[in-house]
Amino acid sequence: MQTITPWVHKVQYYETDQMQVVHHSNFIRWFEECRVHMLDEFGYGYEKLEAAGVASPVLTIEAKISKSVHFGETVEIRAAIEKFDGIRLTIRYEVRRAEELCCTGKTGHCFLGPDGRPISLKRKLPEVYEAFQALPTEFM
Amino acid sequence: MQTITPWVHKVQYYETDQMQVVHHSNFIRWFEECRVHMLDEFGYGYEKLEAAGVASPVLTIEAKISKSVHFGETVEIRAAIEKFDGIRLTIRYEVRRAEELCCTGKTGHCFLGPDGRPISLKRKLPEVYEAFQALPTEFM
Amino acid sequence: MQTITPWVHKVQYYETDQMQVVHHSNFIRWFEECRVHMLDEFGYGYEKLEAAGVASPVLTIEAKISKSVHFGETVEIRAAIEKFDGIRLTIRYEVRRAEELCCTGKTGHCFLGPDGRPISLKRKLPEVYEAFQALPTEFM
Amino acid sequence: MQTITPWVHKVQYYETDQMQVVHHSNFIRWFEECRVHMLDEFGYGYEKLEAAGVASPVLTIEAKISKSVHFGETVEIRAAIEKFDGIRLTIRYEVRRAEELCCTGKTGHCFLGPDGRPISLKRKLPEVYEAFQALPTEFM
Repeated sequence: MQTITPWVHKVQYYETDQMQVVHHSNFIRWFEECRVHMLDEFGYGYEKLEAAGVASPVLTIEAKISKSVHFGETVEIRAAIEKFDGIRLTIRYEVRRAEELCCTGKTGHCFLGPDGRPISLKRKLPEVYEAFQALPTEFM
Repeated sequence: MQTITPWVHKVQYYETDQMQVVHHSNFIRWFEECRVHMLDEFGYGYEKLEAAGVASPVLTIEAKISKSVHFGETVEIRAAIEKFDGIRLTIRYEVRRAEELCCTGKTGHCFLGPDGRPISLKRKLPEVYEAFQALPTEFM
Repeated sequence: MQTITPWVHKVQYYETDQMQVVHHSNFIRWFEECRVHMLDEFGYGYEKLEAAGVASPVLTIEAKISKSVHFGETVEIRAAIEKFDGIRLTIRYEVRRAEELCCTGKTGHCFLGPDGRPISLKRKLPEVYEAFQALPTEFM
Repeated sequence: MQTITPWVHKVQYYETDQMQVVHHSNFIRWFEECRVHMLDEFGYGYEKLEAAGVASPVLTIEAKISKSVHFGETVEIRAAIEKFDGIRLTIRYEVRRAEELCCTGKTGHCFLGPDGRPISLKRKLPEVYEAFQALPTEFM
């Protein structure tokens, strides 16, 4: 079975703001780092999707920040599939510093074909559909 | 009565990604641009809060992107208070390109005192509490 | 004669870092904001270049920061052509807060055709070449 | 002798722009990632400097981009001291994708004490001065 590892991110100086913590918009970028990493590990990276002419834009964003994160700290970000039917995809995330939960969130996506219109992966790219079906639904 | 104007943002090249649209994390930054602008217009800008030793970190983020936005386009962002009780603040936003609605969202905040602990504005800074009570609850 | 106005930028919270000043990388982004604005005002915006299949990537960057810039301040950025021969373009910039000079810099560009190879604007797009020749060589 | 390893950066989607390459401002951010990493490895990280009340702002930036870098690629960034006299510090950088040189650059810094005024590390923090003297002057 496919192993999925957490994405490890070292917090950068340019990610801080004058409140001396990571600017909240960066959590959304870290979700993307983790999402890309998970799909890469799974063998269905963005490059493969884009090579097939498929884009997967973000339609919805949610984040709940429970602990501030600081410059120089290292966080682990995990992703899991919440919902996937070939047309819509919801991924959830958690950001931890050591064992401590700092942020949870979700992103919702659709799939667009080469003409920029929504497609069903099930009908248009059944191999990718099957692969996504096998993505983990729990944090690993 | 206080007039609140929308925040006007011209989309920059560095805000795009290789999908040829604005990267979704920038909507969260635009919410902040608009929030700061609204408080400025209202006479209670961040500088004033920070001068009083009060920080107002973002605890929750929500966004729903219904239309992609592109380099060179100009968008208007409006903010309105959804909920404010002196301890928690929820602001909602909408991003429009001409009349077209492109994105809606919310941010949730608390208030921290000089020691980094949550405070009630009502008790600690009643003048600011009164001012925030008067912020618009509908988009203007 | 064409009037070129400075680009006015209000410093955003997300542009600060924990040193409580604007992170230095943002000056490079402001140069781009100003460059795009100048070309727009001149009637040769990026959209027009990109519509002609021409990209103008940044090859060299220089900046000298003499004053820190802070959240909430407003800066004016001016651009002027330092050198242009149809193959290479060097633009210089200055960032002022009120009258005070805070940063100067330069960016160097080439021009790439639809196949991604360097082109001479003089030979390939003489109309654009003439237009660029008329861009201001002094700050206005 | 202290070993300095290159900083390894995986290029993120949010670092691209609509030219389908990494936005040039990110090279400046990668220089910072590498600078922080080098000082960390050397035992004189930013946290230690900031704990001593010393800030080291960027005064000058230079970059020369010779190859575009793309989403999903991995780059190695190396830093070396070009000049250090306790008052000014110049660091140079190179960004390589496998063996291929993609970008070189420099940043120039001064040192500010707790009151925000320039200091000489040699006089104020001789231990840090000695440590910086031992930083590598060639890429390792």
